[in-house]
Order: sequence, then C-alpha cells, then structure tokens
Amino acid sequence: MRPHIVHTVAEMIGIASQHRRERGVTGFVPTMGYLHEGHLSLVRAAEERCDRVVVSIFVNPSQFGPNEDLAAYPRDFDRDLELLSQYGVNYVFFPTPEQMYPEGYKTWIEVDELSAVLCGKTRPTHFRGVATVVAKLMNIVEADLMFMGEKDYQQIVVLERLIADLNFHTRIVRCPIVREQDGLAMSSRNRYLSDDERDRALCLQQALQMGRTAFENGMTNPARVRNIMAEHVHNCGGEVDYFECVDPDTLQGVPELQSGTRMLGAVYIGKTRLIDNIAL
Amino acid sequence: MRPHIVHTVAEMIGIASQHRRERGVTGFVPTMGYLHEGHLSLVRAAEERCDRVVVSIFVNPSQFGPNEDLAAYPRDFDRDLELLSQYGVNYVFFPTPEQMYPEGYKTWIEVDELSAVLCGKTRPTHFRGVATVVAKLMNIVEADLMFMGEKDYQQIVVLERLIADLNFHTRIVRCPIVREQDGLAMSSRNRYLSDDERDRALCLQQALQMGRTAFENGMTNPARVRNIMAEHVHNCGGEVDYFECVDPDTLQGVPELQSGTRMLGAVYIGKTRLIDNIAL
Repeated sequence: MRPHIVHTVAEMIGIASQHRRERGVTGFVPTMGYLHEGHLSLVRAAEERCDRVVVSIFVNPSQFGPNEDLAAYPRDFDRDLELLSQYGVNYVFFPTPEQMYPEGYKTWIEVDELSAVLCGKTRPTHFRGVATVVAKLMNIVEADLMFMGEKDYQQIVVLERLIADLNFHTRIVRCPIVREQDGLAMSSRNRYLSDDERDRALCLQQALQMGRTAFENGMTNPARVRNIMAEHVHNCGGEVDYFECVDPDTLQGVPELQSGTRMLGAVYIGKTRLIDNIAL
Repeated sequence: MRPHIVHTVAEMIGIASQHRRERGVTGFVPTMGYLHEGHLSLVRAAEERCDRVVVSIFVNPSQFGPNEDLAAYPRDFDRDLELLSQYGVNYVFFPTPEQMYPEGYKTWIEVDELSAVLCGKTRPTHFRGVATVVAKLMNIVEADLMFMGEKDYQQIVVLERLIADLNFHTRIVRCPIVREQDGLAMSSRNRYLSDDERDRALCLQQALQMGRTAFENGMTNPARVRNIMAEHVHNCGGEVDYFECVDPDTLQGVPELQSGTRMLGAVYIGKTRLIDNIAL
C-alpha cells in the first residue's frame, strides 16, 4: 500500500487529531530515512501491534554537531517510499527543516546526566537535538507507541527518561538490533564504508562478543574487559571512541560486570563512526 | 460546586484521557495557590469558555532560585478550595513535589533568549522551571485552553514560544491584570508587605502610568522614560530591579517607544519583589 505523504506539520497534526478521536492505537517509527532492514523491522513491529502506522523521515539538523555529517548524511526518499510501500504504513511524515524549526525557534529539551555520557562525550549537543525533535514529533503525531531499535541504546534510555519526566503519553517499544549476516549492526552510515573498511567494521561487534565471552568465562572487572575490546579494535585498524560497561537504566559505569550490564562501543573505521552494544 | 481533588499524576492523567475521548473543551488554570481575585478571574474566564475546568495548585520548586522564597511562599489549601468551590471548577490538581519531580528526575526545557531578559537576569533558572512544569502540566491535564494573567507577561511570551516550538496543542488565553482598588497588581506576594510597604508598593504601578503619560505627551526615548519610572520608585523608597520598554513579542528593548510597546518593571519594596507591566 502506498502511504500518504505528509509534508507539513499542520497537515500531520490535523490527521493525528482526527485519528485521536477515532480511538485505536497509533504506531510511530521516527527515522532519518535511507531505510534499511533495521528500520523495516520497526515498521513490521508497528504494523503488527497498531491500528495505523506513521513513519517520519527527517534528517534532524539539531542532533548533528558542527563538524558532523549532516550535509553528507545519505538521503533517498524515492527508495524509502518504495520500501515502505511494501508494508501497511498509512502516513510518511516528511517535513522540511523549516517546517520543524521555523525562524525564531528557541526551545530545547535537555535530559541531564544521561545525555552527557557515552556518545554524549564526543557529541555534546546530540541528545539535546534528539530529545527536542522527538518531543516535537510525539506532539505532532500523537503516537501511542513509538518503535525504536536498540542499536541506539542510549537514545532509548534518554527518551524513556524524557517521556517519564515530562509526562508524555507515548510509550517506547524497544526492538532488537538487526544485523547483516556477518554480524555488523545495520546503519545508514554503513554506506560510507569502503570495501576494506566494511570488512574491518566487523571488529566492533566482534569486540563486544569477546567481551561477553570473557564475562561468561568469569571475568567481572570492567576495565579488563574494556581493554580486551579496545585491543581487538586497535588490532583491526579501528580507532576506539569508547567502550563502556554500564547499568542499563542509569548508563553509569558499573564497578563489576553482572547479568544485565550493558556493554556499548563506538569506534571510527576510517572516518566513519559506528556504534553497537550488547547486553550481558 | 465542590471540585474533585486530585493528588496524583496518574489519577489526573486517567481523568484527562477519559475526557479527551468525550470531546468538549478542557480549560486549565495553573496556579501556585494562595488564590486572589486575579486567579479567580482566570477561573471565571475558563468556566465561561470551557466544558470542564481544571485548576492546579502547585508551588513549583524548580522555578525558585536557591535564595528565593520557596519555603516562605504562602500556602492555604483549605481557603483556596473554598474560593474555588464558588465556581464551576471540576478538578483541583494538587500534587506533591515528589509526584511532579520523582527521584531521578532529569529533564528540563529551556526557551532561549526570551528566558534570559527582564526577570531572567536576576532569576536565571526561573523560566526553565516554569517552562518545564507547564509542559508537564499540559501533558498531564491535556488542556485545550490555558488561562494566564498578563501580570506575568514574560511568562506568557515564554510559554507561547514553547507551545509553538514543541507543537503542543494547548492554546494560551491571555487575561488582563486584576488590580486592587488603588491600582496595585494582585499578587500572592503582596501578603509579605507591611502596612507601610503596602502603601509604598503602589509606586510600581504609578511609575508605569507616569511612563505611559510621558509617551502620550510625545516622549519616545526609552532611556528617558525608564529614568522617569526609576526615579519615581526611588523617591518612594523602593529599589528598582529593572524597567524595560520592549517589543511585545521578542521582549527585546525597542529603540523608540511606539504604540504596542510593552513597559515592564520589577521593584523591591523592602524584601518583597513585585512585578507589573503596561502596554502603550
């Protein structure tokens, strides 16, 4: 089914408030487009559980830092629409940056602490941008359920906190990471990788698996496990941004690994920054 | 009619989402309690225009600075309830601070620029607290119309910006300042004033009237008009925090007074800080 394409905030709000009166569950999948199997798994989950599905495609400028890849971020709306047409997506919300951030825009949402760790250290304004745009989208779409992939694990924790703190009605449905056959977590940024880099990119997932194996073999010291993971990435020619072993709710480093600890990593393969994570 | 008193966020959300399905217009009057005729004018306006009315009473800790009057802020719930019982108020939402800011709370909304001028200069975190609590209340109450008095003029401008920027559905209804017979703007903080201070407090409103008269007599230089106003307050034994002549939308100082310019003042009478404003 061909989704209805919505270009303006006003039209989307009109549609959403209409549906609100009709009851039923609205499922929402926020994306930055250039869809891959990870996104599509979210769409399928939404289709299964909801009466109508809204997918947003918006490369949100406010979550990119000044030296990041906003301009280069891959975009292919026609391809995205073709992919989405294979599913029961009712609406594709595809606003311009001017629709979302009109002149005079001034309002920002900060989720303290959770936004400052992990990816927040190298991307200090990233989660402010994510929190703000998702709050806007929740209000515009009036989503009951919002489907998000666990590859962006920190993002989910930040947004669950925002939703609880600001009393939004939307609930996040966490969906598992979708991987390529060899284990690489799917990401729109994988397209930046050369063939050689694509091979080496696997080291991130391998490192996390090695960390898990070390834990399963009895190692509980986070520093030692982090060293194992970092060393593997170095050996594969990658550069480590971070490996951390954290409490899954607070994102604070744990003194000792235990079942439920989340291990997260961010590495540079060439110029491309990739993230992945795994639960113990 | 005796309103139903709601103590928990969960109960208020349940009631609001019930009403949302029933259609009709929900009017909302957010207050910090210790109600006076100004608040009651908002309640009457809400009663006239809405199918149901929610009044919140919450002395919001996050909008008080560390050296401000949070602990001393006057409270009298029984009296407030008695006053509200004279009107068609359906619900009084009366949460504890722990209900609104449970342990682990981390999310804050900043409205840039508009929050930094006027009262924001001496109260740098005030509007962050106001923006955050009102966003929470809008989500909890699901208000269609929110009634606010123009005494807190900057607050209205900040919140209108927040609502537009974050795509909230609530609309603000601006209501005129209610004054004592001699012209003093009604405020819960007026009760801090001694008899002598109460007499002197009138200087704020007098100063603004003198500013307007000067403008009507042809004076358009903001600095000169501000001097007239400040001088009057000094002469009455008050201390000036600020007098500003600003654009009513941007809150930026105007180079020249014109019709529509907003003149705002904040003064200390003894230890009590009072605000007032007037439109040219």
